[in-house]
Amino acid sequence: MKYGSLHDLYLNELRDLYNAENQIVKALPKMMEAVQSTQLRAALSSHLEQSRGHVTRLEQVFKLHNEEAKGKTCKGMEGIIDEGKEIVSHRDNRDVLDAGIIANLQKAEHYETAGYGSVRTWAQQMGHNQAAQILQQTLDEEKEADKKLTEIAGTLNVEAVRRAG
Amino acid sequence: MKYGSLHDLYLNELRDLYNAENQIVKALPKMMEAVQSTQLRAALSSHLEQSRGHVTRLEQVFKLHNEEAKGKTCKGMEGIIDEGKEIVSHRDNRDVLDAGIIANLQKAEHYETAGYGSVRTWAQQMGHNQAAQILQQTLDEEKEADKKLTEIAGTLNVEAVRRAG
Repeated sequence: MKYGSLHDLYLNELRDLYNAENQIVKALPKMMEAVQSTQLRAALSSHLEQSRGHVTRLEQVFKLHNEEAKGKTCKGMEGIIDEGKEIVSHRDNRDVLDAGIIANLQKAEHYETAGYGSVRTWAQQMGHNQAAQILQQTLDEEKEADKKLTEIAGTLNVEAVRRAG
Repeated sequence: MKYGSLHDLYLNELRDLYNAENQIVKALPKMMEAVQSTQLRAALSSHLEQSRGHVTRLEQVFKLHNEEAKGKTCKGMEGIIDEGKEIVSHRDNRDVLDAGIIANLQKAEHYETAGYGSVRTWAQQMGHNQAAQILQQTLDEEKEADKKLTEIAGTLNVEAVRRAG
């Protein structure tokens, strides 16, 4: 891994995000199976479709730079997804599980928001305007998905307190 | 680890954050040594002080709930900090290193923002108002620190492009 220029750092971060998105695409179906709320399941399903779109967008960006679309193990996302698996394995209270899954996914989205914010800014600074626009679209969707989960959390958790608190 | 109630989930997340903050407190001095920009070094120094304060606040929250202040290995933060160490080890271009450190720290802050957002909301929903207030203070500081790093990144990266692009 080279870090001799901002372009190296940028490519490295794109690979980190490419791997992170693929990890999410792989993890979401198991979360969808585990959750109780149909509203949450629908949100996860829509997030899965979106994440597949984010993978495709990153492939477009790699192509713009004549680079092969390849990932680099994203340790941050790996850790977050491990925490998510732990939550999924505890099914004694499904409302609590739903609240935990939301919190875990919000960490994943915040991680990606930070990553996309950096690559978008670097793309702008290096004059890669088309790449910057593509990355901005994904950034907007990540922020939107986070807001939607916060809304759902507001309902779910109250139920969890009522039933189990 | 129990997840039978929202309170269990809440305590688990507080322990995750307690460990995450302690990991950051340990990692920041090495980042401070490695960076070139004096402005960035000052921001990291101030963030280190703040993070120590966040540890103390979490200890207050544990005390409010008559729980021992103890951490639970936060895998998400562990992964993020591993990525940060990799960036610190590449010192061939210090401007690029500075940009990479900022991006890495912003991931750490976004991770924590998501975590504090969840525990703050759960504390409110369970009627732990004093704990919610304490957690809100830290949440505000994390968001503020993220903004400050974005400002510094705006200057640094342009220099990195100019010298190494």
